Amino acid sequence: MNRETFAAGERLVSPAYVRQGCEARRSHEHLVRLLLEKGKCPEDGWDESTLELFLHELAIMDSNNFLGNCGVGEREGRVASALVARRHYRFIHGIGRSGDISAVQPKAAGSSLLNKITNSLVLDIIKLAGVHTVTNCFVVPMATGMSLTLCFLTLRHRRPKAKYIIWPRIDQKSCFKSMITAGFEPVVIENVLEGDELRTDLEAVEAKVRELGPDHILCVHSTTSCFAPRVPDRLEELAVICADYGIPHVVNNAYGVQSSKCMHLIQQGARVGRIDAFVQSLDKNFMVPVGGAIIAGFNDSFIQEISKMYPGRASASPSLDVLITLLSLGSNGYKKLLKERKEMFSYLSSQLKKLSETYNERLLHTPHNPISLAMTLKTLGDDEDKAVTQLGSMLFTRQVSGARVVPLGSVQTVSGYTFQGFMSHTNNYPCAYLNAAAAIGMKTQDVDLFIKRLDKCLKAVRKEQNKKSHVSGVDNYDRTENVDIEEMALKLDNVLLDTYQNSS
Amino acid sequence: MNRETFAAGERLVSPAYVRQGCEARRSHEHLVRLLLEKGKCPEDGWDESTLELFLHELAIMDSNNFLGNCGVGEREGRVASALVARRHYRFIHGIGRSGDISAVQPKAAGSSLLNKITNSLVLDIIKLAGVHTVTNCFVVPMATGMSLTLCFLTLRHRRPKAKYIIWPRIDQKSCFKSMITAGFEPVVIENVLEGDELRTDLEAVEAKVRELGPDHILCVHSTTSCFAPRVPDRLEELAVICADYGIPHVVNNAYGVQSSKCMHLIQQGARVGRIDAFVQSLDKNFMVPVGGAIIAGFNDSFIQEISKMYPGRASASPSLDVLITLLSLGSNGYKKLLKERKEMFSYLSSQLKKLSETYNERLLHTPHNPISLAMTLKTLGDDEDKAVTQLGSMLFTRQVSGARVVPLGSVQTVSGYTFQGFMSHTNNYPCAYLNAAAAIGMKTQDVDLFIKRLDKCLKAVRKEQNKKSHVSGVDNYDRTENVDIEEMALKLDNVLLDTYQNSS
Amino acid sequence: MNRETFAAGERLVSPAYVRQGCEARRSHEHLVRLLLEKGKCPEDGWDESTLELFLHELAIMDSNNFLGNCGVGEREGRVASALVARRHYRFIHGIGRSGDISAVQPKAAGSSLLNKITNSLVLDIIKLAGVHTVTNCFVVPMATGMSLTLCFLTLRHRRPKAKYIIWPRIDQKSCFKSMITAGFEPVVIENVLEGDELRTDLEAVEAKVRELGPDHILCVHSTTSCFAPRVPDRLEELAVICADYGIPHVVNNAYGVQSSKCMHLIQQGARVGRIDAFVQSLDKNFMVPVGGAIIAGFNDSFIQEISKMYPGRASASPSLDVLITLLSLGSNGYKKLLKERKEMFSYLSSQLKKLSETYNERLLHTPHNPISLAMTLKTLGDDEDKAVTQLGSMLFTRQVSGARVVPLGSVQTVSGYTFQGFMSHTNNYPCAYLNAAAAIGMKTQDVDLFIKRLDKCLKAVRKEQNKKSHVSGVDNYDRTENVDIEEMALKLDNVLLDTYQNSS
Amino acid sequence: MNRETFAAGERLVSPAYVRQGCEARRSHEHLVRLLLEKGKCPEDGWDESTLELFLHELAIMDSNNFLGNCGVGEREGRVASALVARRHYRFIHGIGRSGDISAVQPKAAGSSLLNKITNSLVLDIIKLAGVHTVTNCFVVPMATGMSLTLCFLTLRHRRPKAKYIIWPRIDQKSCFKSMITAGFEPVVIENVLEGDELRTDLEAVEAKVRELGPDHILCVHSTTSCFAPRVPDRLEELAVICADYGIPHVVNNAYGVQSSKCMHLIQQGARVGRIDAFVQSLDKNFMVPVGGAIIAGFNDSFIQEISKMYPGRASASPSLDVLITLLSLGSNGYKKLLKERKEMFSYLSSQLKKLSETYNERLLHTPHNPISLAMTLKTLGDDEDKAVTQLGSMLFTRQVSGARVVPLGSVQTVSGYTFQGFMSHTNNYPCAYLNAAAAIGMKTQDVDLFIKRLDKCLKAVRKEQNKKSHVSGVDNYDRTENVDIEEMALKLDNVLLDTYQNSS
Repeated sequence: MNRETFAAGERLVSPAYVRQGCEARRSHEHLVRLLLEKGKCPEDGWDESTLELFLHELAIMDSNNFLGNCGVGEREGRVASALVARRHYRFIHGIGRSGDISAVQPKAAGSSLLNKITNSLVLDIIKLAGVHTVTNCFVVPMATGMSLTLCFLTLRHRRPKAKYIIWPRIDQKSCFKSMITAGFEPVVIENVLEGDELRTDLEAVEAKVRELGPDHILCVHSTTSCFAPRVPDRLEELAVICADYGIPHVVNNAYGVQSSKCMHLIQQGARVGRIDAFVQSLDKNFMVPVGGAIIAGFNDSFIQEISKMYPGRASASPSLDVLITLLSLGSNGYKKLLKERKEMFSYLSSQLKKLSETYNERLLHTPHNPISLAMTLKTLGDDEDKAVTQLGSMLFTRQVSGARVVPLGSVQTVSGYTFQGFMSHTNNYPCAYLNAAAAIGMKTQDVDLFIKRLDKCLKAVRKEQNKKSHVSGVDNYDRTENVDIEEMALKLDNVLLDTYQNSS
Repeated sequence: MNRETFAAGERLVSPAYVRQGCEARRSHEHLVRLLLEKGKCPEDGWDESTLELFLHELAIMDSNNFLGNCGVGEREGRVASALVARRHYRFIHGIGRSGDISAVQPKAAGSSLLNKITNSLVLDIIKLAGVHTVTNCFVVPMATGMSLTLCFLTLRHRRPKAKYIIWPRIDQKSCFKSMITAGFEPVVIENVLEGDELRTDLEAVEAKVRELGPDHILCVHSTTSCFAPRVPDRLEELAVICADYGIPHVVNNAYGVQSSKCMHLIQQGARVGRIDAFVQSLDKNFMVPVGGAIIAGFNDSFIQEISKMYPGRASASPSLDVLITLLSLGSNGYKKLLKERKEMFSYLSSQLKKLSETYNERLLHTPHNPISLAMTLKTLGDDEDKAVTQLGSMLFTRQVSGARVVPLGSVQTVSGYTFQGFMSHTNNYPCAYLNAAAAIGMKTQDVDLFIKRLDKCLKAVRKEQNKKSHVSGVDNYDRTENVDIEEMALKLDNVLLDTYQNSS
Repeated sequence: MNRETFAAGERLVSPAYVRQGCEARRSHEHLVRLLLEKGKCPEDGWDESTLELFLHELAIMDSNNFLGNCGVGEREGRVASALVARRHYRFIHGIGRSGDISAVQPKAAGSSLLNKITNSLVLDIIKLAGVHTVTNCFVVPMATGMSLTLCFLTLRHRRPKAKYIIWPRIDQKSCFKSMITAGFEPVVIENVLEGDELRTDLEAVEAKVRELGPDHILCVHSTTSCFAPRVPDRLEELAVICADYGIPHVVNNAYGVQSSKCMHLIQQGARVGRIDAFVQSLDKNFMVPVGGAIIAGFNDSFIQEISKMYPGRASASPSLDVLITLLSLGSNGYKKLLKERKEMFSYLSSQLKKLSETYNERLLHTPHNPISLAMTLKTLGDDEDKAVTQLGSMLFTRQVSGARVVPLGSVQTVSGYTFQGFMSHTNNYPCAYLNAAAAIGMKTQDVDLFIKRLDKCLKAVRKEQNKKSHVSGVDNYDRTENVDIEEMALKLDNVLLDTYQNSS
Repeated sequence: MNRETFAAGERLVSPAYVRQGCEARRSHEHLVRLLLEKGKCPEDGWDESTLELFLHELAIMDSNNFLGNCGVGEREGRVASALVARRHYRFIHGIGRSGDISAVQPKAAGSSLLNKITNSLVLDIIKLAGVHTVTNCFVVPMATGMSLTLCFLTLRHRRPKAKYIIWPRIDQKSCFKSMITAGFEPVVIENVLEGDELRTDLEAVEAKVRELGPDHILCVHSTTSCFAPRVPDRLEELAVICADYGIPHVVNNAYGVQSSKCMHLIQQGARVGRIDAFVQSLDKNFMVPVGGAIIAGFNDSFIQEISKMYPGRASASPSLDVLITLLSLGSNGYKKLLKERKEMFSYLSSQLKKLSETYNERLLHTPHNPISLAMTLKTLGDDEDKAVTQLGSMLFTRQVSGARVVPLGSVQTVSGYTFQGFMSHTNNYPCAYLNAAAAIGMKTQDVDLFIKRLDKCLKAVRKEQNKKSHVSGVDNYDRTENVDIEEMALKLDNVLLDTYQNSS
């Protein structure tokens, strides 16, 4: 509504009241103006009413929402289903243009603003989370793996001779595939065991660089956030090696924004050495649906180069999600989430320690991993691996999600590469274990329920082991096969489940 | 967004595109301004985007949506559930003030505007539908019956000696109860049979007026829309009697807005005689959820007097529904619905005629009823009433809704008054019959399905009759009891249903 | 989804996972079943997903949502606007039938269930809130005032000779109008001053009963929740008088459900004497939009009689709101809100006490009022009343809503009755004062902002008073007129506002 | 609701009515079962109520919606904003697993089902649209360009020696970039002019294949849908060449699903020769928001191989959009859209022909292009190119979107490659022209408005040209530069705009 509509309103109801309403409107507008002018995440989260008004206002700037528009092109933002239009707040044109995912669309000023503001807000949050000298970033509607691929594809044009990517091992398929998909050969650097922790073998990295020759290496691909007992890579030292040999350095910071330690490592790496880009998941760090990532870096033009590698327009959906989320939370809300996560980590740590000791197990000592914990599973009897797998399955069917059991000696072949001890980031970890993580948004209740259910499951498995009963149908279980562990575990669990349900 | 926010936007994306978006915004604003200035239903319906923007803009004028509000009263528009807030577009304060349902609320300029605009739009539509000289109306969040009660309660203060309401019989409970609830004694005027039609007995009305004395009569309470073979009351003549004897005249126009005939009767009545208020349902005429009515009239101050009789605030929900509906449809959309209804009436009429003749029945000749039709049910065999009832039940369980069978001789007692031949508007209609109506929003498919299913059911009932089988469990069926016909019919249908399902 | 659809699902994705999902579904269903079987508010609030699933499931039981329905009646639940359908979760048929607002609708099993369940939940909450022996209640889509009118109209049929309603004075228009609208003559019983409190004059009540004769009295109409310094009526004693003289007793418990004291009074009244019905607002007690009330009582058949007085169907909207709210909160959530309100009352009380003393005013001692507080305004200088009014206006324009200033000697005529000292519940309260209330949902922030702004405003008014400046345009202010105080106050405030804004 | 909840419901309202509701539920369930069992698009579109119920049911099968879930992983589907959760119907886990975008997620049976069903429905529609022998496809949340890149990256692993992609020229940046991004060198095959049409130079293709050697060629990358006067590539002949030389063949079928001609070409190509994959946009063919594509093919294992190249999970948002859309439309609704588009194409064609002749221009004769049309712009005076550009700008600011003017001699450099006559698909097309397309969802009103506005703009430009006025500020316009034509055009238009607005 504008001056004239308010004037018309004053004739219908008392001018004094309309003026009061008009005044109130201004405070919403003020927030919007601040946002557009500063491009920063507001300290206090916005009301839903301000947020929705803002989104409506942006949307009507897109040509598909023009009242008098006539479309004679092949892509006019028409929508067949009102449900679909509504759930996207009538933003239909996506983001970017054929040449560049960060470019402005003539047909869609509102969507373009949405895109710019989102990237600006996200940059602000990355700084706030610890990488103070980041200079540019953009949201891309692809998950972390594919975003890493995009980085590698961009580097290819800069390094025509390169064939290899140096990669300190982390047993997560999509990291590995991101290199394969981009058409490069991953050079796996095995981790070294220090105490309980698995850490980067810096000497092996440098040796490999010399062996292959820097020009043949596309980049070093390191990782921060990971499952214990692996810990974040030694980013500072890797960054120095990269700087020394003139090799690009791409960091997989998948769920590291939520941890000040991970962010600090990146900041330090960039300060003392070389980091070209770091990539993080939207869903894992900002509690939005799966499907987006942030590509960020310290060199404006390189980040732009990546954004120009994305051919064609892209979904605005992940950008919209993170925009809504950050405006709702405000930077204070996000900081609060970070703080609570830290507390949950301590709580989970102490509870898991206590429980493990009850069962003559122990919590692995992994002080460098700020998110994930591991508890040994050494005492499950003779047929250990089967018991370990079964425990995982039991937790799954009891609605514990995200817990992960790692038996010894699992072998997995990914895109032709065979990994010994797959899931444990090393060929031969000393023992089987169970992982649990304290990720952003976790609640005390999650920890308590987990500990309670884990306790029950451990008890049940022990009892089962003591009986030394043979579970039918899984006798031909061969650990060296490339099996789907989860599927198999579920089969194993069928026998136990009834007993459990009757007793609980 | 205002000038400054747009300026900020121009710095983020191209000024040319932002200007285009800003221009587009103006066309939405233009529609809103026109609405507020003219207070008329727009000819063309609004887009959802204009509509929702408008509602958002109104809502932020209410104090519960002020960003800096602090509430220290007992009614602050707080909402516990976000789902609830959202479904009401954050309009929480309702409409009206303690003194008057049409009054402006200081705390809620937006809701007050919503209320004023809705009443203004509805007035516009009533004119368009045929009552050109209506001067005032308001939406009240009560169904037709309670709204009639409110009119009667208002009249009480003007006519302290009045005890009676003259009421040409119509067999619909809530009309009757509206008078009882208001504390008056209905004086039932039986209808006269003219051909197949049941029409107002004007002489009986006038005789009764003289017998009781005008001062003891609160008002004449007449009806337009009704089930055939009753037809709308002779409003012109009644209005003249009311004018002659100085008796108020309240018209129950429940679903008459959709019919130009009903509206014409009201217009004529007001022109030649006296009509004080006419009441119509929101849901039946405007395809919104049940729960609101419009009280309208030709004398501004009397309508205001009624609105001041409603003690306290009231739900804004029915007003919001009709506002959204009328803005979405536009007056052209509403006219189109009226036109389609007329066509559906002709279609239903011809189809029902054809079907009835196949079964040696006939369509009653009720040319004065523009909405409802009746087809005789004379030939269902010896145990006619049972068969009639069973037919109704069968239609119900086959998902024909709104069809209504009227057996002979049903007796019903309502609030102590006993009606012979209840449902048929007369003590002794010559035959049993079935009603079907062509109401606003009906589709060809409704008619076709209905005719098809009715055909099947008639066939089944006939077959059943021929077998003269005794249906167990309903032998003690006593037509003179005050029974719930629908409940009983369902019981009757159980036997037939299986047969039907197997054959279809 | 049912067994067969799950089976089909298992063929598409792993059976183990589908089974897990199916298991999860059962826990939602379990909650629904418990609700339907017990009819009680669940202890823990439901998730949005359970809630929306439940509403969807109910809605598809209504005939307007049958996939194969064909409608040939005049009221088929058709909806013109998808926005409208959606916001009502596709419940279109409202609640009740022509005869009875609590009756089941054949066309709408889902809406009927919704209605039954809501009434059942609300009954549970009323018990939980302190009226343990309540036996029946129903939600009616009218505000408190009109609901009281309905009670009075129902009593009329039981007490044909009655003309009067005994009413201990409370200065709130809609209470008063509820009696006028019902067609009765209110007999105002002035309150007595005890300390700072205004309390029921029991002797005057009994004297009046004797004077008029019990048969001529429709009922006693008492009040619990009210603005200080009036306090809840002496319900126990009134209930005993009613029992002794055989007079019905209707209690206006507008926002009393939120106070254990008010509820206790009703419980006690019913235990030792007679209470026929007590009426409470939905919005004020359950944080839903304005527009509904609950009529409750201790005699099943009387409450049913009232529900049968409502002629016709009614909006389901208020019922739906309260259902969503109570299922979201759970009884624990509601209890928490009650507890927090009590704490806020203490906090507001202490803060207001402190502030009042700074200005040489005092908090009135009104220990019997559990919700509303009053602070004297004695020291605002010579032209006291003008200053008091101006203070109210200033608070309003500074977005303090619900605060209420009560000048001395205001005179108001309502429906022909003239009240001296209107707003103060007595002809001559010793001093002007300001009201603030701690209602359900209030936050610490509301109190803090209020105290801060009140402080500023008091300072500004004092300063103004000291200048003894004449504010132009309001010189002809006549306190004995029936003026709209809020409108006038706003005019008064215009001069001050600029100063204030510059300084803040 | 299940059997037990219905039983509980029957105790609250009449069993007969609840049974009726329960019956009604079954018809929704029936539709869901059919969908899951057959995996085909239903003929008739679903009601919103069935659709939303289905989505709710799926969503509660995901672990983030389990009532008793406790999450101890790094990705638990937690959502910070209720708005975000709601707009995704609480599907948070995305689709796919680290290894494969089509894989089933243990944590998210509902999302997994959604993914499978969507792919199945889309396959059904592709068959229906003309490619009857397609065997597999999947929706990928990336636009067409990036999806083509993924195809090329997959082929790399099969053809280690390949460096080149044979590409019949089409002037659209993202097609070109899709090859660059994948790291290959596009070998541009210029089109040949046949009449007005630009068609595939088959001889040049075959010559190039021989020259480079089949092993060094990754694939032929052909195009169907394109702007006139270019027409779809000669797919059959290309497919035969590919088969003969053992070269893969990837077809960019961006918006070709909507055209039976394009689909027929693909079907024929696959029948007589070799097509490995064809890629189409979701938004352009299914009227959903930008951001998704479908990768389809005739060899099951190759399509699976592509799906396994996508590293990590992906957004479910595009899949959800197309699922909702197809279920709403039904196959009949989609066919209707296709039919209407064809009619619009004829209408646009005839209207444009008429208009062009009025201005002594002509509609280019391009019978092989089923979607896009071109009208010459030969007569705009001396400074032709400027006038052409200005015309484009004028159309843009008058809210004609999608019309595209193509001046002569525009030069553009994309990723280091320079294109003469960019936008016209050839180095030297005989004349400038204007494009308009009839895409799915176009309405008569679009055509009429377009013709009217184009008429006005042509008139204005002619008038301007006649004045031979020099437009200031754009004198230094250099057609050989790599300029952003749209930006520049807008500048040019500023002078004219005022005149236009005054006259209209």
